[in-house]
Amino acid sequence: VTPRLGSGLEFDTIRRIAEALGSRAPDLGDDCAFIESGGEFMAISTDLSVDGVHFQRAWLNPAEIGWRAATAALSDLAAVGARPIGVLASLGVPGETANDYVVALMEGVAAAAGAVGGKVLGGDLSRSPVWTIDVTVIGRVAVPIRRGGAAAGDGIWVTGRLGGARAGLESFRAGQTPPPYLREAFAHPEARVQAGQWLARHGATAMIDLSDGLAGDARHLAAASQVALEIELGRLPLGLGVQETAAHFQEDPHLFAATGGEDYELLVTLPSDFEIEHVTRFEREAGIPLTCIGAVMAGEGARLLLGGHDVTLSGFDHFR
Amino acid sequence: VTPRLGSGLEFDTIRRIAEALGSRAPDLGDDCAFIESGGEFMAISTDLSVDGVHFQRAWLNPAEIGWRAATAALSDLAAVGARPIGVLASLGVPGETANDYVVALMEGVAAAAGAVGGKVLGGDLSRSPVWTIDVTVIGRVAVPIRRGGAAAGDGIWVTGRLGGARAGLESFRAGQTPPPYLREAFAHPEARVQAGQWLARHGATAMIDLSDGLAGDARHLAAASQVALEIELGRLPLGLGVQETAAHFQEDPHLFAATGGEDYELLVTLPSDFEIEHVTRFEREAGIPLTCIGAVMAGEGARLLLGGHDVTLSGFDHFR
Repeated sequence: VTPRLGSGLEFDTIRRIAEALGSRAPDLGDDCAFIESGGEFMAISTDLSVDGVHFQRAWLNPAEIGWRAATAALSDLAAVGARPIGVLASLGVPGETANDYVVALMEGVAAAAGAVGGKVLGGDLSRSPVWTIDVTVIGRVAVPIRRGGAAAGDGIWVTGRLGGARAGLESFRAGQTPPPYLREAFAHPEARVQAGQWLARHGATAMIDLSDGLAGDARHLAAASQVALEIELGRLPLGLGVQETAAHFQEDPHLFAATGGEDYELLVTLPSDFEIEHVTRFEREAGIPLTCIGAVMAGEGARLLLGGHDVTLSGFDHFR
Repeated sequence: VTPRLGSGLEFDTIRRIAEALGSRAPDLGDDCAFIESGGEFMAISTDLSVDGVHFQRAWLNPAEIGWRAATAALSDLAAVGARPIGVLASLGVPGETANDYVVALMEGVAAAAGAVGGKVLGGDLSRSPVWTIDVTVIGRVAVPIRRGGAAAGDGIWVTGRLGGARAGLESFRAGQTPPPYLREAFAHPEARVQAGQWLARHGATAMIDLSDGLAGDARHLAAASQVALEIELGRLPLGLGVQETAAHFQEDPHLFAATGGEDYELLVTLPSDFEIEHVTRFEREAGIPLTCIGAVMAGEGARLLLGGHDVTLSGFDHFR
């Protein structure tokens, strides 16, 4: 079965792998793999972070690099509504580097896992010409929320605020020192584990975490559910400082936020009868906003609007 | 708890990580992590392979590289007596490379998993300046065999034949074309999954897979079990062509085999009443030899003998 994913070179490669492997890889392309065990599911996912691609050692300290790498993987558990058990971390370490750096990096991995109730279960350590961190996460879930359950009539919602991680990134890239709140958004994202479980309990029909940016990730959810997502980008809740940063780069702040990766918020579809009082309860319990940004329709793809007009955007692609 | 591991820079780093993380990483340093689920255990392990460190693309084709990377991880399941469910593969891919290579590499991963009853469950794909493959394996086991169960009086046994992978490697390193049986030993090792389960059913007290060479791995088992292993290296069963290759490099063939990594055979301790008729049955069922190479004693460390005389050897260490 060809995985139902949006466009992009990375996803073309995943499609080709799935076609080549056939029944030997029956279920590629979702946030997690699932293994039935004792009446529930173990959810597993893995996420590779590479120096110069996902992080720059000049920008962040090793604990922040470890935190981000682990959060990228833990966010996949959040996206299926799973409870984290723990993480395994494989580190590729350039030979000349003192192992204080490795220990500090693992402190960051452990902190990210611990923040959502998980332990460091194991890992591997190898020499490598480039700093590399592959984090595998494992969790439990009774009924996983997948990408493929959205139905016409559902509302489209997003947790938290978007664009902060990209604003921090662009600031670093421009050689600036980002203000503390942008540095924090980039260096210290949170896996929305508690929010994911809450949404799963309250009727979520489909969910995905925003790792590659809303514009790209919305297409994956649309493709998996075989529906169209109509999203009004003007409704996107913006992170602190996103407006100013977008203005600095002469971009519309909502388009800026929609194409920014690594916010690790959740994009979720909820039935049309999801009550407004639930929103208040979510925001009180999770401590972050929950915002309706559009509606699911019959059709295919993600239709992105800004002030009612169609716009064309692409997600972040490491292969671009 | 400081992991009980043998010496080496890599293991010093693991000890430092475990000390720094404390209860956040309660059980580092074994072949697998274990999660209880539905009355049995899920066993998980991860293994990083890096171009220029674990493989050379000039020597092997991508399917062989994928096979080896997956086998290194699957071998950890074999070492605890687990049944593989599947693998996740994270690939770091230099940007300029066509994705045919990626697909072929994943064919090798799928072949290795399929050979021991597993599927490809998922993975990740990222740009990287260096080809990198991190394979995570997951399996099930009712009662895992750990490294720490060996007791004085047990016999020490090894599956299969040793030294073949190193003989192939040294031949490649010397710029030669290894003969087919040495190329095969290096390019196409087998995870001893069936053998591991057989040994678990027949009383194995402790087990470890030979990834870094017998000399180093025996020390890990001794440290974990808090016993001394006395091994007569002259008894090591040698792979085809190992004698000739060792002679070519003017090394003793048994010392050559004992310091060669990546054979992925199992080192196992069995009670003294393990019957000789079991050996015959093992060899018939698993299709490989099972050889007694020594005995467990009170004490600590691995005492290696050749013709009754002490020898000092170290295991393979990627950080050396």
